[in-house]
Formats: sequence, structure tokens, C-alpha cells
Amino acid sequence: MQFHHRGYVSGDPRVAPASGFGIDRPEQLPDELDVLIVGTGPAGMIAAAQLAQFPGVNTRIVEKRGGRLEVGQADGIQSRTVETFNAFGFASRIIDEAYRITQMAFWNADPENPQNIIRTSLPEDDPSGISEFPHLCVNQARVQDYFAEAAHNAPTRLTPDYGWEFVGLTVDRSPSAGEYPVEVRLRRTVGPDAGAERVVHTKYVVGCDGARSAVRAAIGRKLVGDQAMHAWGVMDVLAVTDFPDIRTKCAIQSHDGGSILLIPREGGHLFRLYVDLGEVHEGDNGAVRQTPLDEIIARANRIMHPYTVEVKSVAWHSVYEVGHRLTDKFDDVTGDAGPEVTPRVLIAGDACHTHSAKAGQGMNVSMQDGWNLSWKLGHVIEGRATPELLATYSAERQVIAKDLIEFDKQWSSLMASKPEDFPDPNYLAEFYVKTFEFPSGFMTQYQPSLITATAEHQELATGFPIGKRFKSAEVVRVSDGNPIHLGHQHRADGRWRIYVFADAAAPTKTGTPTAEIAEWLRSDPASPLAATPAGGDEDAWFDVKVVYQQDHSEIRIPDVPEVFTPRLAPFGLADWEKVYGAGTIVGRRIDIFDERGISRDGAVVVVRPDQYVSAVLPLSATDELAAFFAALAPRVAAGDLAGSVS
Amino acid sequence: MQFHHRGYVSGDPRVAPASGFGIDRPEQLPDELDVLIVGTGPAGMIAAAQLAQFPGVNTRIVEKRGGRLEVGQADGIQSRTVETFNAFGFASRIIDEAYRITQMAFWNADPENPQNIIRTSLPEDDPSGISEFPHLCVNQARVQDYFAEAAHNAPTRLTPDYGWEFVGLTVDRSPSAGEYPVEVRLRRTVGPDAGAERVVHTKYVVGCDGARSAVRAAIGRKLVGDQAMHAWGVMDVLAVTDFPDIRTKCAIQSHDGGSILLIPREGGHLFRLYVDLGEVHEGDNGAVRQTPLDEIIARANRIMHPYTVEVKSVAWHSVYEVGHRLTDKFDDVTGDAGPEVTPRVLIAGDACHTHSAKAGQGMNVSMQDGWNLSWKLGHVIEGRATPELLATYSAERQVIAKDLIEFDKQWSSLMASKPEDFPDPNYLAEFYVKTFEFPSGFMTQYQPSLITATAEHQELATGFPIGKRFKSAEVVRVSDGNPIHLGHQHRADGRWRIYVFADAAAPTKTGTPTAEIAEWLRSDPASPLAATPAGGDEDAWFDVKVVYQQDHSEIRIPDVPEVFTPRLAPFGLADWEKVYGAGTIVGRRIDIFDERGISRDGAVVVVRPDQYVSAVLPLSATDELAAFFAALAPRVAAGDLAGSVS
Ligand SMILES: Cc1cc2nc3c(=O)[nH]c(=O)nc-3n(C[C@H](O)[C@H](O)[C@H](O)COP(=O)(O)OP(=O)(O)OC[C@H]3O[C@@H](n4cnc5c(N)ncnc54)[C@H](O)[C@@H]3O)c2cc1C
Ligand SMILES: Cc1cc2nc3c(=O)[nH]c(=O)nc-3n(C[C@H](O)[C@H](O)[C@H](O)COP(=O)(O)OP(=O)(O)OC[C@H]3O[C@@H](n4cnc5c(N)ncnc54)[C@H](O)[C@@H]3O)c2cc1C
Repeated sequence: MQFHHRGYVSGDPRVAPASGFGIDRPEQLPDELDVLIVGTGPAGMIAAAQLAQFPGVNTRIVEKRGGRLEVGQADGIQSRTVETFNAFGFASRIIDEAYRITQMAFWNADPENPQNIIRTSLPEDDPSGISEFPHLCVNQARVQDYFAEAAHNAPTRLTPDYGWEFVGLTVDRSPSAGEYPVEVRLRRTVGPDAGAERVVHTKYVVGCDGARSAVRAAIGRKLVGDQAMHAWGVMDVLAVTDFPDIRTKCAIQSHDGGSILLIPREGGHLFRLYVDLGEVHEGDNGAVRQTPLDEIIARANRIMHPYTVEVKSVAWHSVYEVGHRLTDKFDDVTGDAGPEVTPRVLIAGDACHTHSAKAGQGMNVSMQDGWNLSWKLGHVIEGRATPELLATYSAERQVIAKDLIEFDKQWSSLMASKPEDFPDPNYLAEFYVKTFEFPSGFMTQYQPSLITATAEHQELATGFPIGKRFKSAEVVRVSDGNPIHLGHQHRADGRWRIYVFADAAAPTKTGTPTAEIAEWLRSDPASPLAATPAGGDEDAWFDVKVVYQQDHSEIRIPDVPEVFTPRLAPFGLADWEKVYGAGTIVGRRIDIFDERGISRDGAVVVVRPDQYVSAVLPLSATDELAAFFAALAPRVAAGDLAGSVS
Repeated sequence: MQFHHRGYVSGDPRVAPASGFGIDRPEQLPDELDVLIVGTGPAGMIAAAQLAQFPGVNTRIVEKRGGRLEVGQADGIQSRTVETFNAFGFASRIIDEAYRITQMAFWNADPENPQNIIRTSLPEDDPSGISEFPHLCVNQARVQDYFAEAAHNAPTRLTPDYGWEFVGLTVDRSPSAGEYPVEVRLRRTVGPDAGAERVVHTKYVVGCDGARSAVRAAIGRKLVGDQAMHAWGVMDVLAVTDFPDIRTKCAIQSHDGGSILLIPREGGHLFRLYVDLGEVHEGDNGAVRQTPLDEIIARANRIMHPYTVEVKSVAWHSVYEVGHRLTDKFDDVTGDAGPEVTPRVLIAGDACHTHSAKAGQGMNVSMQDGWNLSWKLGHVIEGRATPELLATYSAERQVIAKDLIEFDKQWSSLMASKPEDFPDPNYLAEFYVKTFEFPSGFMTQYQPSLITATAEHQELATGFPIGKRFKSAEVVRVSDGNPIHLGHQHRADGRWRIYVFADAAAPTKTGTPTAEIAEWLRSDPASPLAATPAGGDEDAWFDVKVVYQQDHSEIRIPDVPEVFTPRLAPFGLADWEKVYGAGTIVGRRIDIFDERGISRDGAVVVVRPDQYVSAVLPLSATDELAAFFAALAPRVAAGDLAGSVS
């Protein structure tokens, strides 16, 4: 965390100084704005927290509820999501508060005594330590609270506008359309004016309004997929029980086909039971939703026999019906329009895709949607990038959603199968462990595009697969000898990262491949850094870091090229925290070159603001680097507001 | 963190439900109260945060300043202190925010070129990993903020009463004295009533009012020690510099005797320089305090030659004068009075002892004073313990302060010496590493007393030295397979801990030494647990935990004796988080018996509310356990209010 450099900060350094639209931010929704986010679920809140970092973007987020979510909905947090929380500054707090999954128990009917269940296996949740971040369970409400705090502490002081329901929109794509071409109708849902409508005009609408998305409907898109829904009786309860694994995540499959997914929850006592209520067809007309709580509890007790669960208090319960469904495109640009047509309405999260609760994906994938989209909007609106960047959102995320639904179908049907259908009794547990990278959120790999280079130079850094998220590893910070997880320094500040992994020479300002690319980055008109606005921090748009191969104690910062110690406004202080080396700390060897398979000739790794690797290049590849960012640079976009849409 | 068990907590679980004096806590200082703390420095704030956990104790803390500290004073945080922060629930946040010391650089005059300094060594700060907690630098103001937050989130909703200066007190020790025998005079320092005095009556006064303590003066005690003070020009600055170790803690010794202690600070840019201004004798009459900032900066530049420090902004500066001084007793009971005389006025922190800033002790040792005292006051006032417990405060802490001053003198004079005075050039660096346990805060070892047993059975748990703080180690929690640092579960909730390290038998409710002591603890009238108030949580006063030798996956909680899964009000839920075993997690073997040298026949380890080990006993030693707590039990204390005092 960097602070004090603009002058002493006496209070909480997590509160950034207000700037841009954060200065005297009006309490009331303005008539005109840049981005209107609809819905304060995980997708909407992460988008809000990210856009709040762009002082030049006027973002508001509306929510039809009168206030924050208080209880219920999703609770599974993948390690990729905790990594994301770290980027927003609250990972350590939510880890302290959440339940941590380290194992999963599988219970089945006892073959000797089928009316009883017995534990058949207890695999570790993540035996290989796929991530340095944990796998958590915590209520969705708290996740949203932390994002709300991050948004409010950001320069634009963003807070949700509760009590506004999105009703409809029209996009003016005529050549005469003004700066705010989307007209949105909102309805007040609370207070003395409840029912009153008003209109706002915006540049973009982000629909994060859940599975029954009205924004999706307004752009004529549909969720398509399973005819039937699967219904679950869900309850968050406090209970006295003799079931020995009540505080372990369990898949429980009884002899008569009834099954339960048990999720222990934060705080040491609460747990959630998902009791399978089976397939629900359209003809059901919501009858399943009438299933009384008592019946769900009785059913749970039957499934868990010989154990009993004596429920003392129910914090939340619901019948959660969901099917595998997906929309074909996540924006309002029709398929045959070219990239010169800018999307104006984009949808994210459950508005685009739904899947079972079993793999615990809903909240997680929705947040990754929201993050993917929001930095792009910030860059386009602040004039850092061409509007064509926005087309990559649907292109990237729709594929991910499709893959996820495939995986989830497989997992759900396995979990619903009887043990005798499996090749061997441990089949389910083994599948869980084998495919763990998927539900933990690390399988996402974006394909070559405007922002993802080809794998031509992948061998220079095999541990940073292009298109996947930058997998952190430790380095030693030269300035203070601290072991630092390089990736954890990547905060959600909207900046691109350019990591220079140095060639084998010692640090010097001239004459080595590292010194040359450093000088090119600093001073060449073709360098992406040339676009950085003058007068502010030299690293305002691009965070350039260097990792040398030498031991940290042999490196002297004054010998390092200047681009790696950029000057900050207003005092011209140099940032010394971007220079790293190898080292041995408390007996532990730290060498990222070995750990991530980086060439000893050096390499450049370019990472997007949402932490995905865009490119791996040789140190000499200044032309490619220039070309990569030139393709993204803002230009007079002829077709910006024209073209046909749905 | 445990929550939800009294019903769903929708918001921040760190905010405990208000209870006792926290319900409708009056904004104004009341006329009568239990504990009046004077001074909101580190000593006072930790005492406030601890006492805030006792719903039955009416505590207020007054401060002559009109509001929170904003800048300046101490900044060194030992790992023992971070461990303490963990007990108060904010370690991870302050770690995220602070500067972390991992190495220390020693700079001396270049023998070839004495007007220049060169780095002579760069030892690791803690090469052996003495603690799992880091060594930090962060402003004292932030430490006080976090304690303020902890106090406010506690059941009694304690917040400081700013703008009240302590003026004087009288203790009524006559037999006719009422419940509130201490009369305190306070003066308003801010607002329209500034200058007005008022009187409050209290049971106890805790003087945490710093080196010039008026509370100390009111009980007639004096700081005794060095005639002379040592003066330092201290400044917290932002600067542009070519000094390569500006972000590493440095001891810099120039050729002409001028020396600097450099402390990098939180936020990546700010650093503190202590520029030695030499000894100041009484005749100086404060002249040294007039040393202008420019002169201090110029002197720093001379000492650091050939490097330059171009100061851009000064956040705080001061001339800090301090000597090694100590008071003979930390309370108002004269030396010849017996333990039946209850102290009514107790002093802590700089009010009792002062030392140089060099070893970074002031804030740390003051907090340990405050913690040592405050849980004892809580226990005595809530009727959990005999008032004789209070005599242990001065007895324990005065010795620690004395040892500390000895160490600090040695360290200060070494640091002030010229390199040529040392047996070899690395002498200073080696001394630093060799004695690291001291400044990191782990040398404290209390001697046998009412609350520290003798070492008779120490061999049953060699890794938990009696009288030293319980050095945490990992165990595997049975309920969920989580690797858990046992000591980190010990929160500052005022409870005693009784750790039962089981014998080798598998868990069972009868017939083993572990089962027998468990049953004794639960049901025997001589068990300390028998004193726990009925109707609340069964573990309200004693937190009893068990660690089995078996692998966690082989242990079933329903087989474990009930005392290890106590029932909680109001639902009668059982707490399953107190049962631990061994295990292998992500390939790492966890076995506390091996790691802490615990006998395979089992052992009981008793730990005080401030984390110090009180006793190590065999599993069979129920009589000793009963006797230990019986000695502490409240009784009609004949001499409670009588006796002679200063
Ligand atoms: C009632 C319910 C129960 C669920 N239970 C589970 C569960 O047990 N397990 C599980 O894994 N997942 C569950 N989910 C799904 C999980 O919560 C989602 O996958 C996840 O929250 C997706 O995030 P999102 O931001 O896309 O949408 P959501 O979290 O659904 O957020 C959408 C937000 O938009 C608001 N909104 C909707 N329409 C409008 C409008 N017209 N104008 C303004 N605001 C609007 C909603 O009030 C809501 O706050 C549940 C979802 C719901 C709605
Ligand atoms: C000005 C100053 C500069 C310091 N600089 C350094 C440094 O550079 N490095 C270092 O290591 N240590 C420094 N110290 C020492 C370090 O701050 C202390 O060792 C540490 O804070 C001790 O904590 P404490 O709680 O005992 O007392 P303090 O932190 O001194 O707190 C005492 C509190 O009591 C209040 N108070 C005093 N008298 C009254 C009264 N009559 N009524 C009500 N309130 C009262 C004070 O305003 C203050 O808030 C400095 C101390 C001071 C006062």
C-alpha cells in the first residue's frame, strides 16, 4: 500500500483522496452520466468498485432494493476470487472472517446398512496448493459490503443508489445522437415518491440485474438452455447435531436418491444445507416454491440418517430453482455488426448465464464478468483506449460461461448419480480433485484478440501462460529486502502492468538489453508510456516493474534505469518499490526465474488491468510492444455511434 | 472469529453486541465509575480495549488533548506486539498497512575515505524466524486508532473522553470509604467550558499519562535514573535521495561521531531520521529543544555524506529528549504494606519507565504494561478474582522495565560507540542478531507468584516455558481440517486458557487420563469451571481446548468429552472448534507435540488472559489445578479497603 507521498495521511490510508467526480459528488442521481450499472449483486458491485477508481468517469449504480442485501443467496468463494479481493484491498479481512474449505467429505449409503450414511472419503480440497489464496465460504452480503466500502473509499466516492428499479431503455444510434445516447427509465421503489419514474441519459448501461434481468430483456436477449429447472431447498441454520462432519463441506448421497450439499459457514456455527428437490418442469408453476421449511428439515434428517439435525434457528431459507442457461451475446451489438459498432448496453453475471449452485460458481464468475468489463469501460471513457476494446468483453466472457456450464452440467449430474453408477466408489471424489482448477477459478484462458497476443514467445516465460491470469510468485524487493508476492502488488487501479524480467547482467543504466528496453520505454515516442498524461505520476497509466536475477543485496537502486523508479507528483519523489531481485529469506530461496520458467535472457510480460497475461515478449521486442498498445490506442472512431443494433 | 451463534449477524462481525455498560452508554463522563484511565497513549488504549471486553466494568478513558493523536511519537512495533494486535483482532490490517523490517543495514565511515559512509553489513532482522509475526514500523497514531476501534466494537462500546485533563486525586482508605474510594479532579481543556473542573469517583485509577505523569506525581512516585537526557532531532520526512538504503532500517555512524538511526515508514515513501544531538544536562534548560529543523537536516546530510537527502516535506519533527529512568513501584501501595492492601492507583507505560528510542521499545513495553494490568482489573471488579491479584501487576512489570533499561543502556552505548572501539567491525551487527529476542519482545519471563506456578513439571512441555508468553504452533482443527495457529485463537477476551494435550489414547469419554481430567473439569465442584456463571456460555470464563495426538481425520467430535465442546447460550449450540489433532496439510506435517516438546503422556498448560504461561501440569494434577485457581478466587478480603498507603 503506498500513501503519504502526496503529503502525510493521518487517518486510514485505505481512504483515497477524493478526485474527479468524487469531489462534491451529488447525493441525487444526475441527469447525465457515463456509466449506469443496474443491480448491486457481485457483478454490479465489482464493476462499481473498479469504475470508482477512474476519477474521470461518472458512474452510478442503482438497485431496486431499498438497501444492502442482508442475508442469503450465494456463499462460495474460489481462490481466484480471493485473489481478486486482494486487488481491491480486502482479502485479509474477508479471510479472517470467512469459513475456509480445506477438505471435502463424501458420504454415501452404507452398503451393509443402506438406510444409514457413512463417510466414504475425505480428500483435501486443494492438495497441490494451486493458489496461495484460500477457498472460502462467506455470505454474499458481506462480499457486497466489502466492495461497497472499496467503492466508497476510492477517488470517486461511489455509493449505491438504492431504491431505483430499472424499467427500460432506448439507445439512440442515429448520427445526431449526443454524448449520452442511452435513455434509461427508472422507477423509485421506496420512500414517499415510490412509483414515480424518471429518466437519465448515459453513455453506457451495465446490466447486472440477475437471472430475470430487465436490461437483458430490453436489448432483446434471452437465456437459452435447459427446459427444466433444478430445485433446491436451501437453508442457513444453527443446529444441534451428532453428524460428525457438520463443519466440513460434504456431498451426501442417501440410499433412496435424496442428496444434500452441506456448506459450513463463517462464524463457526452456521451452516447451509442444499436439499435436492429434483427437476421442476414448466408446468410446475412455482408449486415447488411452496415447499414448507419443515418438510425441507424433515427431508434433511431422513437423508442424514442415522444422524439428526435439530434446527434451533433459521437465518435464511429459500427454494432456489436454477437451470443451465446462457445468452448468446453479452451486449447490444448484433452478430453481424463489425467491431466499429460500439456496444452501449452490456450485461454481466446471472443476467447472462445461470448454473447450479453445486460447483459454487455463480457469484465468482459474475465478479470476473464485472471486472473484465469495467476496466475496459474506464479506459474507453477516459480516452485511454479505442471503443473497440469493448467488443472483447462479450467475446471473452461468453466462451467462459459456455465452458463453465459444460463443466457444471457434468459435475451436477455426477453428484446426482447413485454410487453404483460410478466405475468405482471414489470416482466422484477423484473427479473433484482432478478438476479442481476449474471450480477454483483458474481455468480461464482468453484467446488471441486485440488484448491477448499469440503464444509465439511463450517459451520465454512458461509459468505465465498467455491468456491466463498472472500466477503470482515471490520476489525480493530491493529497497527493503522484503519477500513480496509480485502478483499481489497488482491492485485494481486500472493500470496495465509491464514486467521486465532482466537479462543476466547486473543493473546498469546503459548497454544491456534491460537497460535498452528501459530507455525505450521511458523516452521513445512509440513507447506506450508516451501516452501518460504529463504533470501527474509518471506511472499513472503503466506500472512498469523490473526483476533482476541477482541477489537483492547486490543491487543498488541508484544503478537501476529511471523508468523503474518513476517520479510521483507533487514532490517528484521516486518510487523505489518496483525493483526486485532474488534472495534467501529466513532460509527460504526465492527466485522467480526458476519458479516461473523465465528465460535467463530476460522477458517482458504484459498484464491487463484485470490480471490476465496479454503478452510474453523478448526484451528486444520493442516494435511488438509498440504495436500491441498502438492497436488499443484511442483514435477517431468513425463508426462509433453509427451502425445497426438489435 | 465466532459469531452468528446468538442469531444471524448481518453486518460486520467484528462489532460485538452491546452489553452491560455498553447498553445506552452515556456520552458524558458519569459521576461514579469503576476504572478511570488517564491518557490515550498505547498503554492507556490497550487497557481501554481490554477493559471494554468486560460488560460489568464501567471504564472511561480521559485525554487532555481534544482529539486523537494525528502524527509523531513512536513507530517501532515488535513481533510480540503484532501478536498482541492479533489478540485484539487487527493484526492483519495493520500488517497490510505498515512497513515491515526484514533486514538492518549498518553504515560506518569508510576507512579509506573517512568523510564518506559505506555499508558494512546487512544482517537479516530475524534470520531464525523467532515469531510468525513480523516486525513493523507504523505511526503510533494508527496503533491508537486500531485500539480505539477495538474498544468501540467491544460489548461496552468504550470511546475516549477527549478534552479532560487529570488534575489530582485522593484515595480514601478509611474504613468508612464507600465503593468508589478514589476522588479524581479533572479539568476541561477544550470547548466553551475549557478550564472548568469537575470531580468523579472511581474504584481505580490507571495512570497512562506519559513520562511527565501527573498521576504518578499524585501518588508521590518519581522517575529515577540518568541525570542527563539524550536528545535526538527526530523528523518524519519525504525526500529525494541517492542513499541506497533509504527504505531499510539503518544505523549510520559517521567519522566525526555524528550518528543517525533511519526508520523507513509505512506507505512506501515516508521515513524517519533520528539525528543524535548528544547528552543534555539539566543546565541546558531546554536549549536543545530550540534546535532548528534546518540544522537537523543539514546535520543529517553531513553524516550521510557522500549521499544527499533533499527534504521535500516534513510530516513531523521534534527534539525528543529521553533518559533511562524508572519508578520503584507501579502502584500506590507502599513497600511495607502486605498483599491485603489493594492498590487503587496504578501507573503504566512511560509514566513508570523511559528509555531511548534506539531499541524501539517505548510503545511496545507500555502496551504490555497496559494489558498485564487491565485484565486483572476486569477480573477483580467483576468478582472473578481476589483483589490480591492486583499486587502482581507492579511486581511483574517493574522487573521487566528494569531489565529493559539495562538492555537499552547497553544497546544505546554500543550504537554511540566508534567502530574502532569494537573488538571487530561486525560486533554491533552481531550483537543485534544475537540479542534479537529481547527487542522483539519475547524475553519477558514472569517469576513464580500467585499466577505463575513453579517449573516443577516444565519437562512435560518444554516448548512452553512457564512465565513466558505462549509461543503458538500449528494444530489441525478436527471439525474442518483447517491448519490453525493455536495461540492465535487466544483473543483478548479476558478468559483463562486451559490446554489439554491428550495422552496417546484415542478420543473417548471415559477411562483415559484425558477423559478423566475432562470429566473433572466439567463436573467437579473443585474445578475452576465451577465458578462460571450459570445461564450463559459454558466457556465464558475458561476456554478449554484439547489437542489429540491422532491425525485429525481419525477423530470424531461426538467421541470427545463434553467439556471440550461447551454449550453456548441461547440455543445450546455446541462449540466444535476447540478440538485439534495432528495432520498433513498440502504436504506439510503438523504435530504440536513434536514442535513444542510435549510429553506423549499428555500435559495441561494453563495460560493467562494476556497469553503468558502460568502452569504446566500432568493430566493427573487436578489437585494442583484446583489449588492454583482457588488461590485466585474472590473471597471476603478483610483488608480490602484498609491499610496504610503513601
Ligand atoms: C434469491 C436468490 C437466491 C440464490 N441462492 C443461491 C444459492 O443458494 N446458492 C448459489 O450459489 N447461488 C444462489 N443464487 C445465485 C447467486 O446469488 C448469483 O449467481 C450471483 O449473485 C450472481 O450475481 P449477479 O451480480 O449477477 O446477480 P444478483 O446477485 O442476482 O444481483 C442482481 C441484483 O440486481 C437487482 N435488480 C434486479 N432487477 C433489477 C432492476 N430491474 N432494477 C434494479 N435492480 C435490479 C437485484 O435486486 C439484485 O440486487 C441466488 C440468487 C437469488 C436471486
Ligand atoms: C512528544 C513525544 C515524542 C516522542 N517521540 C518518540 C520517538 O520519536 N520515538 C520513540 O520511540 N518514542 C517516542 N516517544 C515515546 C513514546 O511515544 C512512548 O514511549 C509511548 O507512547 C509510551 O506510551 P504511553 O501510553 O505510556 O504514553 P504516551 O504515549 O506518552 O501517552 C500519554 C498520553 O497521556 C496524555 N496525558 C498526559 N498528561 C495527561 C493528563 N494530566 N490528563 C489527561 N491526559 C494526559 C497525553 O496527552 C498522551 O496522550 C515520544 C513521546 C512523546 C510524548
